[in-house]
Amino acid sequence: MAQTLARTMPGVLELLPRDQIAFQRMLDIIERNYRLYGFLPIATPVMEFSDVLLTKSGGETERQVYFVQSTGALEKEGRPELALRFDLTVPLARYVAEHERELSFPFRRYQIQRVYRGERAQRGRFREFFQCDIDVIGRDQLSIRYDAEMPAVIHSVFRDLGIGPFTIQLNHRKLMRGFFEGLGIADSEQQMRVLREVDKLDKRGGDHVRDVLAGPEFGLSGEVVSRILDFVAVRSSSFEDAMQKLDALGDGSETFEQGRAELRQVLAMVRDLGVPEERFALNLSIARGLDYYTGMVYETTLDEHPDIGSICSGGRYDNLAGQYTRSHLPGVGISIGATRLFWQLREAGLISTADSSVQVLVTQMDETRMADYLALASELRAGGIATETVMEPGKLGRQFKHADRAGIRFVAVLGSEELARGTVTIKDMRRNDQFEVARDELVRTLRVELEQAAIMPVTRNG
Amino acid sequence: MAQTLARTMPGVLELLPRDQIAFQRMLDIIERNYRLYGFLPIATPVMEFSDVLLTKSGGETERQVYFVQSTGALEKEGRPELALRFDLTVPLARYVAEHERELSFPFRRYQIQRVYRGERAQRGRFREFFQCDIDVIGRDQLSIRYDAEMPAVIHSVFRDLGIGPFTIQLNHRKLMRGFFEGLGIADSEQQMRVLREVDKLDKRGGDHVRDVLAGPEFGLSGEVVSRILDFVAVRSSSFEDAMQKLDALGDGSETFEQGRAELRQVLAMVRDLGVPEERFALNLSIARGLDYYTGMVYETTLDEHPDIGSICSGGRYDNLAGQYTRSHLPGVGISIGATRLFWQLREAGLISTADSSVQVLVTQMDETRMADYLALASELRAGGIATETVMEPGKLGRQFKHADRAGIRFVAVLGSEELARGTVTIKDMRRNDQFEVARDELVRTLRVELEQAAIMPVTRNG
Repeated sequence: MAQTLARTMPGVLELLPRDQIAFQRMLDIIERNYRLYGFLPIATPVMEFSDVLLTKSGGETERQVYFVQSTGALEKEGRPELALRFDLTVPLARYVAEHERELSFPFRRYQIQRVYRGERAQRGRFREFFQCDIDVIGRDQLSIRYDAEMPAVIHSVFRDLGIGPFTIQLNHRKLMRGFFEGLGIADSEQQMRVLREVDKLDKRGGDHVRDVLAGPEFGLSGEVVSRILDFVAVRSSSFEDAMQKLDALGDGSETFEQGRAELRQVLAMVRDLGVPEERFALNLSIARGLDYYTGMVYETTLDEHPDIGSICSGGRYDNLAGQYTRSHLPGVGISIGATRLFWQLREAGLISTADSSVQVLVTQMDETRMADYLALASELRAGGIATETVMEPGKLGRQFKHADRAGIRFVAVLGSEELARGTVTIKDMRRNDQFEVARDELVRTLRVELEQAAIMPVTRNG
Repeated sequence: MAQTLARTMPGVLELLPRDQIAFQRMLDIIERNYRLYGFLPIATPVMEFSDVLLTKSGGETERQVYFVQSTGALEKEGRPELALRFDLTVPLARYVAEHERELSFPFRRYQIQRVYRGERAQRGRFREFFQCDIDVIGRDQLSIRYDAEMPAVIHSVFRDLGIGPFTIQLNHRKLMRGFFEGLGIADSEQQMRVLREVDKLDKRGGDHVRDVLAGPEFGLSGEVVSRILDFVAVRSSSFEDAMQKLDALGDGSETFEQGRAELRQVLAMVRDLGVPEERFALNLSIARGLDYYTGMVYETTLDEHPDIGSICSGGRYDNLAGQYTRSHLPGVGISIGATRLFWQLREAGLISTADSSVQVLVTQMDETRMADYLALASELRAGGIATETVMEPGKLGRQFKHADRAGIRFVAVLGSEELARGTVTIKDMRRNDQFEVARDELVRTLRVELEQAAIMPVTRNG
């Protein structure tokens, strides 16, 4: 038979089973926390009608959309009718507009699905990747209190992921806008250009940025430049410090004061929600795209790995679905790009290959005793323990080796002595320990061991 | 702003949140059982290279493939380089061939992902649907014992789904092939045509099928036709009956005897694995595509809903990935088409909208007490209870109404009296019952109630 080289397209993260288990555990932790905070699941089709997906001009090239055509449609001329989603926000907007009358508002949804972008092939850039989003959508209005829940969810997720200390950084678009207006920079395009320059602080240094802002392109006075650089340098070190730094900003326009009041309220509520104060901070340099967000904005960074950048971002927006409905739908949400995050954490050694999802391997000592091995496996499964049975005869040493290589923690041996005594011998591959246990104590004993192991963080050495 | 009509493409099943919860519960039950039986998760990209996906000629038209092109590729001529998977078997073959050296065999994998087919738009036909597959892949050989695990997994899944009595029907391709060869119908094409006619028994009746097989198209003698119709009519009613009916088939060719011996072994092992005998039966009419399966074949039907057809099918095949590798990779597997199954079960009234995934709604009585409500919500979440907090002020009656409509079971009321006493008042919306509970007993009390509810089957009235 003529053969084709088995290969995957570049820009996808296809994993071996034990890495897949680790990745799914990450997704499970994210999903569990989204559910705990009262968000409801939705899932949308991977394809949308092109005209529905690409209502905003310029989006197509920018997003590097993948178009889809069935065998039949391919033979016809014209632009493809279907395209793959490039984020979960546009599908959410479409979903809410389409099902508006069947939903109750504020609508709290989570969505954990893959999205597609025809990115340039490059290390760490993905063409298929998971986004894990939550959003609360109001009709006509949405209390600022929902904005305070977002950092609480972020905190729960990253606490449970156990990937080291992190900081949720908060800012407010109105505070920023008001500040710039106070300096005479009222045009939002111009504000965006200034912020883009400011974003280069880490890479190019203060002197360079100062020169550019004071130079012919921007023409800002030295004093204005200094005030901008002072403003974006504001970081708080505690809750009280955040409040004091907000006070110390001095008076501002109505927009500015509105932003400041909301930031104060959110900070206080985040504390009331039990988020430790070392986990959230004011950071007045966070902007996140001037055109989309209109209120609170969030970024989250790992304290010991700032190079990874923001691992969870989001913010408040004014109107979710203006392209589909006349209803005014303000919202607030966050997103975790799980594929990239997993890849980065693995690169940084913060996450590693998991144990097998198989918890017990039932060995085969004597082929004629197969029925006993199957009965044992059934008992374990009835007790909720994931069990593999060795089906092909072979040396016991090889069976242990399989368990070891596969990352299966427990190996069950059921010899004639154990059968006579009504026991099972269990080898714990992790502890390199062995014990004999009464058959009717087996499930309980193993569950205790497995539950203890589950309390340990996801992160592992090696 | 000019508006676009928000709409989804036909042939997809997009659900409202409470239906999505019911659907995810179905997927979770399937996945939990796949894991319990020691299968490991993999996930493959939704897109494959077209040449890799479409190695088998004729597949393209037959499968109604969706081709994919990025914005850039669209402007170029020629056949698209990428296409969406139309099943999980070809991606599995590609995966195993690509990662062969990193996998250990027998390789046990489960995969629960969506697949895509450009089906004609029609009620109950889906263009995007979930397949939930397990397969065991051997290298060079694979014990028949693995074939016996499949009915055990099927049994666990459908027992846990709680959608009524079902029967796993077993047959063996070699038994069938040997039988036809014994009648002088040696050509597998001809066997397939006969079986296709036989498949019409239910719809067209025995006389019609008998006439066609004895007619000019097939030219079979009356005796041969009778033997065929007797053979395919064989159904067992118990384990012993299955064994007796296999014995009663009389002697056959080597192929026939091999099939019979394997069927006997599988039936005995299925029993040893604890599958109740009323849940599996011999059915010698099951064929499942002559070209692909080579040994055991399985179909599963709901006893009280035969019209739904097979809800889980599969079988043994000789070589998984001949198009990609010279390695000989025999396998056995089953597949559940979850999207169609969910849709059919809902149509049949066997599954309904779930309760909300939100378990408790914390009400708001007094806006100034927000910090107390947030603290209560945090306690509940720390106890693993999914909790929504009412953030906008409003009448208590409206808050209860929201819980009722959203399917949230418990509503927590924290008034000044409760705060003074260190208690919470809980309204159980399902039982229309109300009780006051000490704050430090709250999580435990609710968990007991929720765990009791979780034991109840998925199916619900109404």
